[in-house]
Amino acid sequence: MDNYTMLTDFYEITMANGFFNEGYKDRTVYFDMFFRSTPDGGGFAIMAGVEQAIEYLKNLHFTQEDIDFLRSKNMFSDGFLEYLSNFKFVCDVWAIPEGTPIFPGEPILTVKGPAIQAQFVETMLLLTINFQTLIATKSNRIARAAEGRAVMEFGARRAQGVYAATYGARAAYIGGVAGTSNVLTDQKFSVPALGTMAHSWVQMFDTEYEAFCAYARNYPDDTTLLIDTYNVLKSGLPNAIKTFDEVLKPLGKRPNGVRIDSGDITYLSKKCRRILDEAGYQDCKIVASNSLDEYIIRDMLVQGARIDLFGVGERLITSKSNPVMGGVYKLVAVEREDGTIEPKIKISENVAKITTPCFKQVYRLFDKDTNKAIADVVTLHDEEIDANKPHILFDPEYTWKRKQVRNFYVRPLLEQIFKNGECVYKSPSVKEIRTYCDAQLNTLWEELKRFENPHKYYVDLSEKLWQIKNDLLRSVSTDG
Amino acid sequence: MDNYTMLTDFYEITMANGFFNEGYKDRTVYFDMFFRSTPDGGGFAIMAGVEQAIEYLKNLHFTQEDIDFLRSKNMFSDGFLEYLSNFKFVCDVWAIPEGTPIFPGEPILTVKGPAIQAQFVETMLLLTINFQTLIATKSNRIARAAEGRAVMEFGARRAQGVYAATYGARAAYIGGVAGTSNVLTDQKFSVPALGTMAHSWVQMFDTEYEAFCAYARNYPDDTTLLIDTYNVLKSGLPNAIKTFDEVLKPLGKRPNGVRIDSGDITYLSKKCRRILDEAGYQDCKIVASNSLDEYIIRDMLVQGARIDLFGVGERLITSKSNPVMGGVYKLVAVEREDGTIEPKIKISENVAKITTPCFKQVYRLFDKDTNKAIADVVTLHDEEIDANKPHILFDPEYTWKRKQVRNFYVRPLLEQIFKNGECVYKSPSVKEIRTYCDAQLNTLWEELKRFENPHKYYVDLSEKLWQIKNDLLRSVSTDG
Repeated sequence: MDNYTMLTDFYEITMANGFFNEGYKDRTVYFDMFFRSTPDGGGFAIMAGVEQAIEYLKNLHFTQEDIDFLRSKNMFSDGFLEYLSNFKFVCDVWAIPEGTPIFPGEPILTVKGPAIQAQFVETMLLLTINFQTLIATKSNRIARAAEGRAVMEFGARRAQGVYAATYGARAAYIGGVAGTSNVLTDQKFSVPALGTMAHSWVQMFDTEYEAFCAYARNYPDDTTLLIDTYNVLKSGLPNAIKTFDEVLKPLGKRPNGVRIDSGDITYLSKKCRRILDEAGYQDCKIVASNSLDEYIIRDMLVQGARIDLFGVGERLITSKSNPVMGGVYKLVAVEREDGTIEPKIKISENVAKITTPCFKQVYRLFDKDTNKAIADVVTLHDEEIDANKPHILFDPEYTWKRKQVRNFYVRPLLEQIFKNGECVYKSPSVKEIRTYCDAQLNTLWEELKRFENPHKYYVDLSEKLWQIKNDLLRSVSTDG
Repeated sequence: MDNYTMLTDFYEITMANGFFNEGYKDRTVYFDMFFRSTPDGGGFAIMAGVEQAIEYLKNLHFTQEDIDFLRSKNMFSDGFLEYLSNFKFVCDVWAIPEGTPIFPGEPILTVKGPAIQAQFVETMLLLTINFQTLIATKSNRIARAAEGRAVMEFGARRAQGVYAATYGARAAYIGGVAGTSNVLTDQKFSVPALGTMAHSWVQMFDTEYEAFCAYARNYPDDTTLLIDTYNVLKSGLPNAIKTFDEVLKPLGKRPNGVRIDSGDITYLSKKCRRILDEAGYQDCKIVASNSLDEYIIRDMLVQGARIDLFGVGERLITSKSNPVMGGVYKLVAVEREDGTIEPKIKISENVAKITTPCFKQVYRLFDKDTNKAIADVVTLHDEEIDANKPHILFDPEYTWKRKQVRNFYVRPLLEQIFKNGECVYKSPSVKEIRTYCDAQLNTLWEELKRFENPHKYYVDLSEKLWQIKNDLLRSVSTDG
């Protein structure tokens, strides 16, 4: 299932066939991917999934089996099926690099190319980037809630399928968790995999103490014991300490930790901490798991929980509180036969659903003194922002709201990843992306990182772009 | 990525290595998969994903690459790695067939085999069945809300990954939708794929009317036009009717439908219906899409929406209102060296989390006159229920609540799918599963199908099993 060419909405093929038959095959068009709101009402999202989008585009091809299948529908012209069997991707593609904080309303990916091709890739580009962006964003929220304590992704068994388990763990690592339980993600992407024992290990032995001793004998350097199979304070913790004393101590080893997976974890963690400290195991970590997310972790810490490492399962890998990233892919321009670019707009009664036309670039402005991001400015693709002159930001909705920015530097966010169908971008390693993400997050003001009512970051249009959009809007609404 | 052997939680491997080193390699154990509550508080769930669980188990093997990767962790014994490189699955597995309504607390899958193997497969069995069961269940809720109108699954672009898009569409079809937009699911499973045009088709042409005519010329037998790109009533519908009159009529063709994807769809559908009828297109269907689910569809129909087909996207393919199916996999018995089976229980302060021990079977009792399901009875695996004698049901929690059942027939639900590691089950086609599911749903009382406060179906234990569970509970709590 590694070639996902046929993972596409049926209408992408009916439209492609129509474009072919109508002679629009080679008409150059521009599509943007963007999203309208952030998951969980947060201040930003984190771009992820670009490497998988690239793999998809590199592998695009139709097998004879695919062609035969499409032919069996009796809907597509022979010329079109012939075109598909010789399909060669020739588009240009730009994307914001993985790990970058991104904001509603700005293009995060742009495809330029023949209508038939640029349209066709919609489903998979959206799917790939929507999902990983969702999980990277959620992971970062959870990692922030843990305030420097490590968080592990443990959700494979409740993930929405094998791809979600594997690539979700990749995205979670980008967003800030320290590792995963999923061995495959470690093998594929070197995201550290960890894990010790389930309740079934404890149940398999005649007593909890025997189970703990057996584990410590097998993993004297990595002994983390699950202490809630029977009763944390009456049985689990005493047996764990006895194991540390009787198995590890003679070997000159220190325990790694104890894990609590049920009950009132905040209360139990405080009790366990005191007992472990008194027994001389101040360095023994306390690991907590059991349906955690950013809200529960924050509450636990506010109430003084003594936890060193959080294992987070289904609420991270499905982004349970907000399981959909609503990225969309919209036509923004069509090249006329004379080579000029005609902007396209999709209007809507819902103002947030009106698209921004034209082939574009996004610039991020950073304050020179603090290195903090000030605003993103969406421009025409060939506009530049001169950092030597004051720049005037203005709200695209309330244009009288203006703000002059000085003493800044500027970075274009959209980078070219395909040129004439050839990949011209080398994806960094997942670890490099994680490090980059962390550095980029340091450019965001703390006010953006609140869970409730975060500050709204400026995403503005250049004056030129704003003018084109307004003219188009006016002409369309006059037509109506 | 078709071999998912390495998609496992790391602790499955640390435990497997531990079992191997402790001489528990060949100890026969029994694990059950079950769930504790239904998605969205519904009256039941629908079993799905068994075919993919079977494929996983058939393909289980470790490549040299996998072994080398595990060796690099410096945690696993040479003997264990040797065992893995010669791995041969030898377990027995039972499962409830796909498409069967299932209930909390009953085993839906049982694995019997060597500890090291039966434990290892936990992650993937849970993942595979949790996800598809979740989506089949959601799909059925949505299909029920549509009250006989067709529902199409349109969610690929917002699915949680390619597997979710592809196998989620499979599960949705089992649960009752009529088809999908995902071409790959059609190709793999013959789930009918459908789709017509996006807004970008309309925008690509100079006018909406030209776009519609082009589409009708290309697909005179399948003309469904998207009428909300500019304005449904002022532009979309008049242009559609003009296209029907001027392109289809001369060809002797009738239109298929019009689609509305935004705005007040209930209101617009009523207006459109009247205008279409007056124009002589009483047979032209109205298709609605835009973030629909069972609650919204029910509301629309209550308010008199005139819709013939619903396209349902992200709220189905992610089960947005309840994106996690909490199936678990628990040790229920261990064979002693003398061949007797020792039941195992996992206790918890939370009564719902206490497991039911022993190697078991589930029987469904049906009323002979109405063919309605009366109750499920969980028994020891070798118990039988004699349908010729009255059967006494009793509530496992409130044992004084008893009910005598007569005039019934009985069906064992768990079917063997693997015997000594060999698959002994042939999965039906997805279409056959869908037909079977529909028939099984007819055995459920309407009271179970409510969205709010459905009737609670009886899932009882046999007297023998209840006795064993109680004795175990008492002995464990006395120990504590």
